[in-house]
Amino acid sequence: MRVCVYPGSFDPVTNGHIDIIRRAARMFDKVIVAVVVNPNKTPVFALSERVGFLEKVLSNMENVEVDSFSGLLIDYMHIKGASVIIRGLRAVSDFEHEFQMALMNKKLDDGIETVFMMTNVRYSYLSSSMVKEVGNLGGCIKGLVPDAILPEITRVLKEKGENKDG
Amino acid sequence: MRVCVYPGSFDPVTNGHIDIIRRAARMFDKVIVAVVVNPNKTPVFALSERVGFLEKVLSNMENVEVDSFSGLLIDYMHIKGASVIIRGLRAVSDFEHEFQMALMNKKLDDGIETVFMMTNVRYSYLSSSMVKEVGNLGGCIKGLVPDAILPEITRVLKEKGENKDG
Amino acid sequence: MRVCVYPGSFDPVTNGHIDIIRRAARMFDKVIVAVVVNPNKTPVFALSERVGFLEKVLSNMENVEVDSFSGLLIDYMHIKGASVIIRGLRAVSDFEHEFQMALMNKKLDDGIETVFMMTNVRYSYLSSSMVKEVGNLGGCIKGLVPDAILPEITRVLKEKGENKDG
Amino acid sequence: MRVCVYPGSFDPVTNGHIDIIRRAARMFDKVIVAVVVNPNKTPVFALSERVGFLEKVLSNMENVEVDSFSGLLIDYMHIKGASVIIRGLRAVSDFEHEFQMALMNKKLDDGIETVFMMTNVRYSYLSSSMVKEVGNLGGCIKGLVPDAILPEITRVLKEKGENKDG
Amino acid sequence: MRVCVYPGSFDPVTNGHIDIIRRAARMFDKVIVAVVVNPNKTPVFALSERVGFLEKVLSNMENVEVDSFSGLLIDYMHIKGASVIIRGLRAVSDFEHEFQMALMNKKLDDGIETVFMMTNVRYSYLSSSMVKEVGNLGGCIKGLVPDAILPEITRVLKEKGENKDG
Amino acid sequence: MRVCVYPGSFDPVTNGHIDIIRRAARMFDKVIVAVVVNPNKTPVFALSERVGFLEKVLSNMENVEVDSFSGLLIDYMHIKGASVIIRGLRAVSDFEHEFQMALMNKKLDDGIETVFMMTNVRYSYLSSSMVKEVGNLGGCIKGLVPDAILPEITRVLKEKGENKDG
Repeated sequence: MRVCVYPGSFDPVTNGHIDIIRRAARMFDKVIVAVVVNPNKTPVFALSERVGFLEKVLSNMENVEVDSFSGLLIDYMHIKGASVIIRGLRAVSDFEHEFQMALMNKKLDDGIETVFMMTNVRYSYLSSSMVKEVGNLGGCIKGLVPDAILPEITRVLKEKGENKDG
Repeated sequence: MRVCVYPGSFDPVTNGHIDIIRRAARMFDKVIVAVVVNPNKTPVFALSERVGFLEKVLSNMENVEVDSFSGLLIDYMHIKGASVIIRGLRAVSDFEHEFQMALMNKKLDDGIETVFMMTNVRYSYLSSSMVKEVGNLGGCIKGLVPDAILPEITRVLKEKGENKDG
Repeated sequence: MRVCVYPGSFDPVTNGHIDIIRRAARMFDKVIVAVVVNPNKTPVFALSERVGFLEKVLSNMENVEVDSFSGLLIDYMHIKGASVIIRGLRAVSDFEHEFQMALMNKKLDDGIETVFMMTNVRYSYLSSSMVKEVGNLGGCIKGLVPDAILPEITRVLKEKGENKDG
Repeated sequence: MRVCVYPGSFDPVTNGHIDIIRRAARMFDKVIVAVVVNPNKTPVFALSERVGFLEKVLSNMENVEVDSFSGLLIDYMHIKGASVIIRGLRAVSDFEHEFQMALMNKKLDDGIETVFMMTNVRYSYLSSSMVKEVGNLGGCIKGLVPDAILPEITRVLKEKGENKDG
Repeated sequence: MRVCVYPGSFDPVTNGHIDIIRRAARMFDKVIVAVVVNPNKTPVFALSERVGFLEKVLSNMENVEVDSFSGLLIDYMHIKGASVIIRGLRAVSDFEHEFQMALMNKKLDDGIETVFMMTNVRYSYLSSSMVKEVGNLGGCIKGLVPDAILPEITRVLKEKGENKDG
Repeated sequence: MRVCVYPGSFDPVTNGHIDIIRRAARMFDKVIVAVVVNPNKTPVFALSERVGFLEKVLSNMENVEVDSFSGLLIDYMHIKGASVIIRGLRAVSDFEHEFQMALMNKKLDDGIETVFMMTNVRYSYLSSSMVKEVGNLGGCIKGLVPDAILPEITRVLKEKGENKDG
């Protein structure tokens, strides 16, 4: 059984992420969507919220599992018996950083493979940061995040945006 | 009448910005230079200073107006009856981010158009950050910002640089 | 009156080109779509065919004119009383070459401005070369070129593709 | 069973190609290495030579098959029951073109997925063109192509290089 | 005598840096490795530690000197009688920023030249940030930094990583 | 004595080339400007013309020598006792190809170093191809090539352009 891991901050999950997950699930036996716990970053949404959003919108995909981890991705892969890392590529700036991380992971464990999938062209402008920026300013984020979690994300982002102005 | 908006932080305005504004003013009936109020950033120059600098150096251009706004750019465009966003392009890294913003703005309002103008080749190394970095270290910024505001910008940047060292 | 020129090979015109023309026509008083006669290239479609396709699909746009020219673009701009060059941008590799041409044109006449518009995200994979490559191999190019000229382009490309194999 | 296709000119196969194939063979049940017959290109090595080189160096990999095809890649995928296209990525310029092809293939058949693998960092300078360029000039190409086919490739390239000079 | 300066944060020095220094020392009469004191950044390693690491691993290179400076690089060059700035290039994103800095330095003093050397392909994934990221998470950084300073860097990074989690 | 080689087609030499040569001559003891004889390309100017142009415009630089070579650059370097290759960098697309060539040369001889210098910002749009393109169409190329060879280059390019049209 080939298990792949799709790691990320998912702060919050976007329709671009969902598209990658859906397509990866057709190629591999199991896809683990793994929320990275990064002590150096201050996410807008708590870890439990980010995991909760993913579980809500991915519950209907049988071979997709939602999880979170701290520490080295490579160590997490070993624990889960996974051999493939999935990453979405959007643009050149993505590519550079992704390339560097993939090479470092290969240095840490040569048996782990990173495969890149292109972001759907409809979502090429889309990132979690963009969602937060637009949402903070009270803009409409419908179509950017899954409908099932749209009201909650809209509400949280708008509140945070208003607090900043106050 | 075709109105365009040239949004930015202008912290501070550089000769590269002035060059774009001058050229945009030849192409469109009216150019609104709009200082973005971004609660997530801490500018070196206060909003009133940034607007003041722009007003001082642009006062002789008849179809150019200086303004500021907070919130979504698209909402501001609607209020001003503007349909075109002007952006200067300097380099590839610029391009990626600009592309993403332009696509997001198109998603928010399909009737708004972003047009890109190339930065004059003489200013291809020039950005507000570079001006601040050089000025903070006591370097000469003549030729980087308009002469009319050079003494004040030089003085402020040098003071801030010295405070950091202290 | 502000006149802009949208120069290109249009071998053949694609839906990506049409999208740029439609949007440019909203921004400027007049758009001249100018087929470049380049003695160094061997186009698949004759000049008259390329002009004919453009005229057929653009006939309903009032402020759009179809034309062709040989020689320097800058000289052609002077003859037509045009001051703005329109170019579509698709990707980084585009950007580099476009940037170089725009700077050269600025060197030849500082009063001429090049403005870049982003290709619609739906057409980001689309180029005349791609249309020819897919069409030559007998692939379906519906959605890539305007429907009104689809049958003729499909037929010509398929014939040329078969001749190569023969 | 998940079948992937690794299409290319392989004119000639390099150690960079072999590295991608070996790694893809660990991820998928079957890898078809498919030499593209392109009537628009004049390869240095004949189709039978290119296929022969691949068969010689890949004979020990059980789930790898060597084949060739003309026409649309998507049509070939359908015939072989393959759903995944494998492509190696070396650099930014690669990326742009690859991205465009992958999007076009997705337009032609949304069920086909392109996955990108990074070229091993040791081979990041390596391409079939580089091998031909160095070999034509009589340079040593050991380490660039598999040892088993090194003498024959060296001989052919050197002969062609000498004929050009004559 | 031609003196060059290789400026950087060296937080900490990596094997990629050492490779550049070793190669530059073959090309120029003297190489000054100059640790930049930047009041805007909070390094992980103190200035004295960063200088100490460099001195330890570079002590065997006769024409290499370790130093540190604050203020403008150009002013420092004048003091040291140096006319060439050495920079390593890893990737496109590097290139953009490096290009901008080199142009700015040329504007400040036209007699100062920046030359770029390519990072060894074995270290193309390597940066001080990557070392810190991997080391903070307890990953093995052997091969990324010189062996002589590996134990101390490993210890410091691991401690900082654990404090963040606590 | 440190000898560097600046290889290229120089078809024809441009002011951008001259700028690189002048700056390289300040950094190294001797600069050999080496015209590459490439049997795969059909230059517009004959080898003797290209060498002649370089000799004419570089005769006043004492430590600059003009030469030509065929075969591998690395072999030529050995013959001339040179250890450094000089290359000008203009843009990202340049960078990719240059990077690949530099890595290949390092593979062929690890003792040879490639150093990159940035093209003067005034010449960032300038290439031999651009000069030929503009000159063929009868455009003014003053400022693009050295004045001493301007009349001859203008005359040759114009003639070739007219023959193509005829």
